[in-house]
Amino acid sequence: MEYWQKDIETMSRKDLEKLQLERLKKTIELAGNSPFYSKVFKENGITADSIQSLDDLQKIPFTTKDDLRNNYPYGMAAIPIKDCVRIHSSSGTTGNPTVVLHSAKDLDQWANQVARCMYMVGIRDTDVFQNTSGYGMFTGGLGFQYGAEKLGCLTVPAAAGNTKRQIKFITDFGTTCLHIIPSYATRLAEVMYEIGLDPRRDTKLHTVCIGAEPHSEEQRRRIEQLLGVKAYNCFGMSEMNGPGVAFECTEQNGLHIWEDNVIVEIVDPVTLQPVKEGEVGEMVLTTINREAMPLFRYRTRDLTCFLPGDCPCGRTHRRLARFKGRSDDMIILKGVNLFPIQIEKILMQFKELGSNYLITIETVGNNDEMLIEVELSDLFTDDYSVLQRLAKDVTRQLKDELLLTPHLKLVAKGSLPVQEGKAVRVKDLRKLC
Amino acid sequence: MEYWQKDIETMSRKDLEKLQLERLKKTIELAGNSPFYSKVFKENGITADSIQSLDDLQKIPFTTKDDLRNNYPYGMAAIPIKDCVRIHSSSGTTGNPTVVLHSAKDLDQWANQVARCMYMVGIRDTDVFQNTSGYGMFTGGLGFQYGAEKLGCLTVPAAAGNTKRQIKFITDFGTTCLHIIPSYATRLAEVMYEIGLDPRRDTKLHTVCIGAEPHSEEQRRRIEQLLGVKAYNCFGMSEMNGPGVAFECTEQNGLHIWEDNVIVEIVDPVTLQPVKEGEVGEMVLTTINREAMPLFRYRTRDLTCFLPGDCPCGRTHRRLARFKGRSDDMIILKGVNLFPIQIEKILMQFKELGSNYLITIETVGNNDEMLIEVELSDLFTDDYSVLQRLAKDVTRQLKDELLLTPHLKLVAKGSLPVQEGKAVRVKDLRKLC
Ligand SMILES: [Zn+2]
Ligand SMILES: [Zn+2]
Repeated sequence: MEYWQKDIETMSRKDLEKLQLERLKKTIELAGNSPFYSKVFKENGITADSIQSLDDLQKIPFTTKDDLRNNYPYGMAAIPIKDCVRIHSSSGTTGNPTVVLHSAKDLDQWANQVARCMYMVGIRDTDVFQNTSGYGMFTGGLGFQYGAEKLGCLTVPAAAGNTKRQIKFITDFGTTCLHIIPSYATRLAEVMYEIGLDPRRDTKLHTVCIGAEPHSEEQRRRIEQLLGVKAYNCFGMSEMNGPGVAFECTEQNGLHIWEDNVIVEIVDPVTLQPVKEGEVGEMVLTTINREAMPLFRYRTRDLTCFLPGDCPCGRTHRRLARFKGRSDDMIILKGVNLFPIQIEKILMQFKELGSNYLITIETVGNNDEMLIEVELSDLFTDDYSVLQRLAKDVTRQLKDELLLTPHLKLVAKGSLPVQEGKAVRVKDLRKLC
Repeated sequence: MEYWQKDIETMSRKDLEKLQLERLKKTIELAGNSPFYSKVFKENGITADSIQSLDDLQKIPFTTKDDLRNNYPYGMAAIPIKDCVRIHSSSGTTGNPTVVLHSAKDLDQWANQVARCMYMVGIRDTDVFQNTSGYGMFTGGLGFQYGAEKLGCLTVPAAAGNTKRQIKFITDFGTTCLHIIPSYATRLAEVMYEIGLDPRRDTKLHTVCIGAEPHSEEQRRRIEQLLGVKAYNCFGMSEMNGPGVAFECTEQNGLHIWEDNVIVEIVDPVTLQPVKEGEVGEMVLTTINREAMPLFRYRTRDLTCFLPGDCPCGRTHRRLARFKGRSDDMIILKGVNLFPIQIEKILMQFKELGSNYLITIETVGNNDEMLIEVELSDLFTDDYSVLQRLAKDVTRQLKDELLLTPHLKLVAKGSLPVQEGKAVRVKDLRKLC
């Protein structure tokens, strides 16, 4: 087994926890310089000395997205702005955006973390790595760029969109690895087949990192099959730098989260108490290896759980279950809580169905109804009775998963809107009252 | 006077030329590994030993853009592709695109060169630097990003477009410096004034680096006045990495070209012989500090001349005159050679005229005619006789400059198309025969 940083990746839990405590105390000292945390710490009597064990972390209050918004832009900085070299800002469609500040050391540490993830899934300095993320403020661009360069890949900073050009780069430059949004990965594959290119035969692609969008195991398998690659789930969030927070290893059995850089808690989103071992809850993260803008007990709003057991890869950093989506993504319909990814999981099991789908929720009379439109796959029949039978099968499985019965509409390939960026999967047209 | 690298920037000509010869010989040795140059060198009997003085450079044949195209993508690489960490590709609207490969050392050297340029115009690690370039393949994005981070600025990777968001970043983050296309700089200023923001009063902007588009001294002065900044002409080209090739110092008297990294020749574009001291010709560049993809005597197609005399700033690297545009930009009309920038120069002298203009060349009957449409500035009259007098004045000055008489049309502010990227200034609608 090969590792980017064997000593850290395979560190014993005892040593890892010792390192966490050390770094936590150091980070608390540093964060005392931030206008926001100096106040929080004073109000709660927090000092580095008051933290004697990792359990003492719970003395510190949670930090929320609203705290970031209310202290926009520089109120969370723990070092002078002069010593920061990068700012990333969320798009902030409502209210103040959130920003994250980075020192040169932070950027180097982030690049190293991304390199570690990429190395873990078998990417090496001999690979040609094409990044189809947007660049600029979107952290998937510069985050993977710096990480892949640190790893020593030949990087192709293709940026987002322009599918024909992406394909030209892949074939001309001999691209072997991609970073790509899952919905765009299926789209890219479809366009390749449309122009008579079989990516399994006509490209050197072998590994893709898929992220920035919740996706199901079934969609991953579809991407792997269409492109002839191994696809790895990568999780990032801008508040935690961006990509590289947690990443699957080649076992594809959950995402290792790098506990030398963050302390992970999983809490009940209502009671805010730790969930029981193995239960799903909201992930809460504390940065312990970041200087410009440390965050303590940050409520990520992402729902997941710890997976039990040791990973055969030898890494000791704990594994998280595939993310179902953010608590904000949850649809509440007729008193039932559900995630779009549950629907995707069912749809992707049918090879007769394509990869593009759209969920619309609307008020019909006094009822809220769910309409699921999904494209048929290329190769499929237009025999009406066959289609009817298929629709019935899919609907039954959806009902079993969701515990409610959606309206299903099978539509022709190419009839739903196509996105080159993050796919819009849900349209909620419900009247508010 | 402060320098980023005093020893190199103020090196005596003798030492600089000694350094050039050393680096040239080393680069020839290295380039022998490239499929393209190994052939060229063999055919012309070039070895490091055959180069005894800088004059011997002329033994090496010119390299052209077509050579780059014909050896796309990897035929110019002087090191194994595995040791390259970045590829930049031109958009390549016709034929093969061109690519430039970079090693990690090349990227570091490029970042250092950009940092040197930025430092030269007074930008420091205390500054907040917002980059309004496109990122990804366009070198103005990552090129300035790495340079500004190396210098230690707080970088705002805003990327191109979205003017409202650019303005929000400038005001919220206290941006002090911009990298911006000149036509977009005037556009940005106009939008600021439209929304009631006076950039001279309401922002901390003090320095902008303008490049990627030929522009006149008059446009620079206009940008300086509108934004309340010093504006510096920066010249880059993707074949020579990107931004940072040549840059004005605070004297604003021509662009220092970094002769520790390139050897500069200026040749007659027809005879390919060196022009006489001070004459305008095509700039030809040899990279002497790049390992992944050295280029010898690369014909840039950019027209300029050396400026005489020492620069009061103390830097010994020679200064080039403002670029008139590429030889491809030259308009030949009725036997007269002219550049769009000559027209801009005249228009910008009239405060009654805005910053947006469009040149259309079309065949009317048997004649080719030039139409110049230019927007009136905000503050101006709609008194017909005043407008008529203005049109007459402008036309006369254009005639003096161009030696032909264009049709001039003064149009209302906001009536010409607006671009957030490079401005399209010339539409050539002539029938080819
Ligand atoms: Zn593992
Ligand atoms: Zn100077």
